[in-house]
Amino acid sequence: MKQELEIKPVDHNNFDDFLQLVDKLAEYEKLMPPDKDAKKRLKNDAFSKNPRYEAYLVEKDNQYIGYIILILTYSSFLALPTLYIEDIFLLPDQRQNGYGTKMFDFCKKIANEKKCGRIEWHVLDWNKPAINFYNKQKAVHLREWLYYRLTKDHF
Amino acid sequence: MKQELEIKPVDHNNFDDFLQLVDKLAEYEKLMPPDKDAKKRLKNDAFSKNPRYEAYLVEKDNQYIGYIILILTYSSFLALPTLYIEDIFLLPDQRQNGYGTKMFDFCKKIANEKKCGRIEWHVLDWNKPAINFYNKQKAVHLREWLYYRLTKDHF
Repeated sequence: MKQELEIKPVDHNNFDDFLQLVDKLAEYEKLMPPDKDAKKRLKNDAFSKNPRYEAYLVEKDNQYIGYIILILTYSSFLALPTLYIEDIFLLPDQRQNGYGTKMFDFCKKIANEKKCGRIEWHVLDWNKPAINFYNKQKAVHLREWLYYRLTKDHF
Repeated sequence: MKQELEIKPVDHNNFDDFLQLVDKLAEYEKLMPPDKDAKKRLKNDAFSKNPRYEAYLVEKDNQYIGYIILILTYSSFLALPTLYIEDIFLLPDQRQNGYGTKMFDFCKKIANEKKCGRIEWHVLDWNKPAINFYNKQKAVHLREWLYYRLTKDHF
């Protein structure tokens, strides 16, 4: 019988498990994972008096199989907070079991609790399984909005 | 002689001027401006104990000619805050005078003060003057990241 999935806040005891999953998402996305100093900052920023993000671990059968990082942004025209999903990651070998849907439902619950007007995120254009999943969730690809970034070396 | 541009935080005295400029940006972007209730929330969210956003007005010759709304987001892989520009707007008849550059320089200054690793924003794909401006700032269009949204009716 399948154990129920548990989604719970990251804490001091499971922070190393969380960091391992962050590395695995970076590997999956072919991006630079946080280095040693960045990992220290991640910990400070999670547990400071005004945490910079909210992180949750997904546990099943005493294993951590995924994580979520959430941030509140804001829509000036709606004048409501937006739940921004910075990261949502489920280990590849745990997919196709409905766990991703439960994780996304968890995000929706948090968005309701925080009285958000929207949930937003970005997804890499080659990540077809994720894109198919989001389309099934009735999410909209805001293709008219171009995403821009200025990196530290230019300011 | 041109008066120097002044960029200052929105306060209770100039909040109505700020709201007028928000309406003008919505008009320029052909989007729904905040309704009466949303305008009340904008005020509460600006001046609450934990403000949901930071807003600045641009003043020249005793006129308000633009505004900026900033939010802090976060990069999990950098483990640094990101300065997110929710809105940056200069009245169309005030452009081509270098004011936009001064407004963007102001954002860079704030990003440095807040020790951000990045500045990010979205721009509408038909807004060519803005896109040209951002490209000159050495900003990068993150075309591989698709921007997704789930609206309130789906959560």
